[in-house]
Amino acid sequence: MTDSVLPFPPRDQLPGKVYLIGAGPGAADLITVRGARILARADVVLHDALVTAEMLELCPQARKIPVGKRSGQRSTAQVLINQALVDCARQYSLVVRLKGGDPMIFGRADEELTALDAAGIEYEIVPGITAALAGAAAARKPLTRRGIARSVAFFTSSTAPNQPERVTLPNCDTLVQYMGGREAIATARWLLSHGHSPTTPVVIVENISLRNERVREMRLSELEQGLSDCEGPVLVMIGEALAPRPGN
Amino acid sequence: MTDSVLPFPPRDQLPGKVYLIGAGPGAADLITVRGARILARADVVLHDALVTAEMLELCPQARKIPVGKRSGQRSTAQVLINQALVDCARQYSLVVRLKGGDPMIFGRADEELTALDAAGIEYEIVPGITAALAGAAAARKPLTRRGIARSVAFFTSSTAPNQPERVTLPNCDTLVQYMGGREAIATARWLLSHGHSPTTPVVIVENISLRNERVREMRLSELEQGLSDCEGPVLVMIGEALAPRPGN
Repeated sequence: MTDSVLPFPPRDQLPGKVYLIGAGPGAADLITVRGARILARADVVLHDALVTAEMLELCPQARKIPVGKRSGQRSTAQVLINQALVDCARQYSLVVRLKGGDPMIFGRADEELTALDAAGIEYEIVPGITAALAGAAAARKPLTRRGIARSVAFFTSSTAPNQPERVTLPNCDTLVQYMGGREAIATARWLLSHGHSPTTPVVIVENISLRNERVREMRLSELEQGLSDCEGPVLVMIGEALAPRPGN
Repeated sequence: MTDSVLPFPPRDQLPGKVYLIGAGPGAADLITVRGARILARADVVLHDALVTAEMLELCPQARKIPVGKRSGQRSTAQVLINQALVDCARQYSLVVRLKGGDPMIFGRADEELTALDAAGIEYEIVPGITAALAGAAAARKPLTRRGIARSVAFFTSSTAPNQPERVTLPNCDTLVQYMGGREAIATARWLLSHGHSPTTPVVIVENISLRNERVREMRLSELEQGLSDCEGPVLVMIGEALAPRPGN
């Protein structure tokens, strides 16, 4: 039997394995221990724009490929990211797809996993700290609170893409809007017009876990005025669980 | 001036600092790098019942105080936990309160932080991987999906404590019920009677990230029959985002 008739490539030429890893909110030490260990062994790392330079110092040995999407900046289309992942898995044995936050929440993991499935490439997912958890920690505000808040919703836009007039917000006790900067006014208006009190506590966290992190507390009536001075990614948290604690 | 008239104790006798740290879902390497580093320096660690022995190996130097609450087992009342935290901060300089999952979601952090505030004790919160994120990673199912699921709700009981007949579930695209074992039947019934399809995808994850982890996929109509054979903590995820991917 010669090489040319081998039905499959030898073991060491099989496609590599892809790890979808959640980088967490930004600070390099808010990745999981598992994520950091895999990064330190990676051959290649395809990373979002939100992944910091400090985080990439965890994988000095790896080839780094930025595939970031960020509003207002030039970005890589999702289909090209999917293809790059598959191509990398055919060239390298340990491929990391490093995504800001957690891969399974607002991460479009589904499209990347579908592409890997179609190409027969093995993968594993390592969760990450999603912005809501890091934002709550930074603001020292719980998202649930006994007797006050027993459910929490994470959502992005407050409008349906094809029906901008049909706004419906989650009915959970605590609401967390990701990328809520521009959307915050519509969110506040909807809540106020649906019986929420103007004094409902609101906490805004910008640049979560980074050096320029900023936490602001306000009321729903103020949120309706907009967040004109926000820079960078903004997390908007709304609900009675976020009320000041006694003595604070 | 003699020691006896000093208005405050010297700096090294001031109360210690308390770190509320999320241990994550169970596996010792799913804590954050920051959490692991603080654990390795802790003088004392007050930990939940759900924190594993493997996780506690990250702090061999520390005194360990179990303060776990677990359904059906003898537990420490919250008020005693609060007091133990304050007492420890008066005896030790680096105190860790290690909580399963994330401290700010279903962790009763609020009560512990209020007690620390009242005692004038400094604290910091380190987020952890909450069960929903680890469950989604284990099941390889995204909680959001472009064009299909733009919001996700985390909740516990489907009944209001004082009004058991007034069940209201979140209206988010994806629902994640924590500690959903016994509650799953009521959840399924409510959803079916409020227009959700019997074929809505359901994913159950038990003992997330541990050696005996188990992932099961079913439909909402099956969930209504109950999860009689579940052992340990159960996470119930419901929604179209969890549908099988093409080729799976």
